Amino acid sequence: MSQQPIITLLTDFGSQDIYVGVIKGVIAQINPQISVIDLNHEIPPQDLAAARFCLMNAYTYFPRGTIHVAVVDPGVGTQRRNLGIQLAEGYLIGPDNGIFSSILSLSPAQVVVELTNRQYWRTTNPSDTFHGRDIFASVAAHLANGISLTQLGEKIEITSLVNLPIPQCQVIDHKIIGSIQYIDRFGNLITNIPESLVRGKSWCLTVGRIKIPSHQTYGNVRVGSLLGLVGSHNWLEIAVNQGNAQQQLQLNLGSIVEVIYQ
Amino acid sequence: MSQQPIITLLTDFGSQDIYVGVIKGVIAQINPQISVIDLNHEIPPQDLAAARFCLMNAYTYFPRGTIHVAVVDPGVGTQRRNLGIQLAEGYLIGPDNGIFSSILSLSPAQVVVELTNRQYWRTTNPSDTFHGRDIFASVAAHLANGISLTQLGEKIEITSLVNLPIPQCQVIDHKIIGSIQYIDRFGNLITNIPESLVRGKSWCLTVGRIKIPSHQTYGNVRVGSLLGLVGSHNWLEIAVNQGNAQQQLQLNLGSIVEVIYQ
Amino acid sequence: MSQQPIITLLTDFGSQDIYVGVIKGVIAQINPQISVIDLNHEIPPQDLAAARFCLMNAYTYFPRGTIHVAVVDPGVGTQRRNLGIQLAEGYLIGPDNGIFSSILSLSPAQVVVELTNRQYWRTTNPSDTFHGRDIFASVAAHLANGISLTQLGEKIEITSLVNLPIPQCQVIDHKIIGSIQYIDRFGNLITNIPESLVRGKSWCLTVGRIKIPSHQTYGNVRVGSLLGLVGSHNWLEIAVNQGNAQQQLQLNLGSIVEVIYQ
Repeated sequence: MSQQPIITLLTDFGSQDIYVGVIKGVIAQINPQISVIDLNHEIPPQDLAAARFCLMNAYTYFPRGTIHVAVVDPGVGTQRRNLGIQLAEGYLIGPDNGIFSSILSLSPAQVVVELTNRQYWRTTNPSDTFHGRDIFASVAAHLANGISLTQLGEKIEITSLVNLPIPQCQVIDHKIIGSIQYIDRFGNLITNIPESLVRGKSWCLTVGRIKIPSHQTYGNVRVGSLLGLVGSHNWLEIAVNQGNAQQQLQLNLGSIVEVIYQ
Repeated sequence: MSQQPIITLLTDFGSQDIYVGVIKGVIAQINPQISVIDLNHEIPPQDLAAARFCLMNAYTYFPRGTIHVAVVDPGVGTQRRNLGIQLAEGYLIGPDNGIFSSILSLSPAQVVVELTNRQYWRTTNPSDTFHGRDIFASVAAHLANGISLTQLGEKIEITSLVNLPIPQCQVIDHKIIGSIQYIDRFGNLITNIPESLVRGKSWCLTVGRIKIPSHQTYGNVRVGSLLGLVGSHNWLEIAVNQGNAQQQLQLNLGSIVEVIYQ
Repeated sequence: MSQQPIITLLTDFGSQDIYVGVIKGVIAQINPQISVIDLNHEIPPQDLAAARFCLMNAYTYFPRGTIHVAVVDPGVGTQRRNLGIQLAEGYLIGPDNGIFSSILSLSPAQVVVELTNRQYWRTTNPSDTFHGRDIFASVAAHLANGISLTQLGEKIEITSLVNLPIPQCQVIDHKIIGSIQYIDRFGNLITNIPESLVRGKSWCLTVGRIKIPSHQTYGNVRVGSLLGLVGSHNWLEIAVNQGNAQQQLQLNLGSIVEVIYQ
């Protein structure tokens, strides 16, 4: 039992229905000893960009060999493929719709298979609307049980995967032009500007006409004040000490932010 | 440990308080090795119909012997009875208020006891408002530990249980008149018309003056378009590809839908 | 494995981001066998009073030795200290901001350390905004693994901790003047008046001009009617049978309530 891999789940199923519980039941039917960790089930419906962001920022915090199941799947039941992917750090299971693009840009795929072997599905006649239950959960549990990835289906070319890249920020002289790529529960506005671009430098943010100084942490400014900081996922972000930057600035996903550094 | 049954929890406790966490603590006090799976804690307060729907559609996805604890319990602390029920597939623990009616119509009760044996409660002086903690969680953990159902209380007649049946759909010639019995996170409108009534047939739905064609899955229609389909629980449902059918149609629980098939 | 302590998590991280999942990943990286129970992640952002209330009312329902990690932490990354506390019943891990005040008033601290030993942190260079991941989760997992509390840092004086006491109710003759200290999912208004003050007595509540009789449980009054009762945490509370007392009375946290008893 000591080497049993963990399965994580990331979906847009929310918590008001039985979809997530049933996925865990399917895993338990195959092996009740498998540990399942909820990564996040509150991805907005069909929001692949949010799912992509969450996976990319989470996978390094799990044990080697962890199996990440991601089910944000507007194309379920159509011709889009079901994927099993091996990374250096573990495995990815989910639809071929770009949800894994960001994580794969950081940790290249070693092996990719299309999950065609129905022997490891929950049923050979799966629901056309719930592959999470009938294919992904079942396949992940068998993988955790020691079935090898290549038994789950046919190898396919890594280059054939659907790609959904993050909008990149642009560096021009001492200015970086980026955008908001994620907004968290606290209303923190997380940009697509990595900390590495300003490391060791003095920097500040500009949003429209508003200039926002950078600090080390929330408590360095007065309650209610805006600040820029390096967020816990190492992206530059805009926050308000004990407040909500999204509400204060009325920014949205994709809104432009500029960073000046020296 | 290999044969330790799982406990599932279905409640209307939500996630903003400690009620669910405390139930898990009580189980862990009895045996920290027991696996607990959250089925759903976002049942709307006191909504027995939603609870009944969720249980009925979930129980087949869990290992044999699983103990399902259901606590939607507006009559807590009154004379309503506390039940332990044995099915072919596992056990049900909860109040005698009809919450188990649908599951029992599919999987008949083999043994029913009233949970009167205070030896297996958390305390012999339970809270009048939280039997989930002081009776159901404790009894479920002892059952998972190998105590037999009949040790938990007195056998009672199956026919004496409170019954809360699903409104049945009606078939008249080639028309089925049904209603919306559940609305999920995505705004999918789930009817009380089982897939078996239209299997192998051509069918479409009518809601008021709106005619909705049936398809295999969401992606078979344009983004934003309505479709009828066989949902993952094998009920006919109305959905919108990458949209929200409830918002688009402004239907509610109980709204009438018609199906025509040939 | 039989003696492995459980870790519980209480945060204001909500469920829409990966923060909680990542904390569980960090624990699993140290030891995937550790059981983690979610106490509550929906504490309103930075609401130390709600966090304090939840911890105080939950800790007795867990096995001895349980490690409670609490991360509501507006001062993260500033000079505020990180604490490890030993109680008779288990351990507390979190920031020194008063979040543990109430629990410590019921169960005195036996040993308190400041978590200064970076050997047990996830990284010696932790994020200034996410000590939950980089310090608290890691330290809790090592504690669960058998590292002693005093290895985690320097002992400090119990009297030096930040104190954030509950507003106390006042007893004047046969009247108790208290206030609402917590409002739960159902809209139940939980006062700061302990049941012990009215035990064995006849009592009723007054809110403004509204007089509210006490009963044993919800079902003792008509649907939609107000009642006072002893809540499951042994505080007097105001509820509505199958309704929402907060919405009906429009009370808030801190609103004054009076109890008359004889």
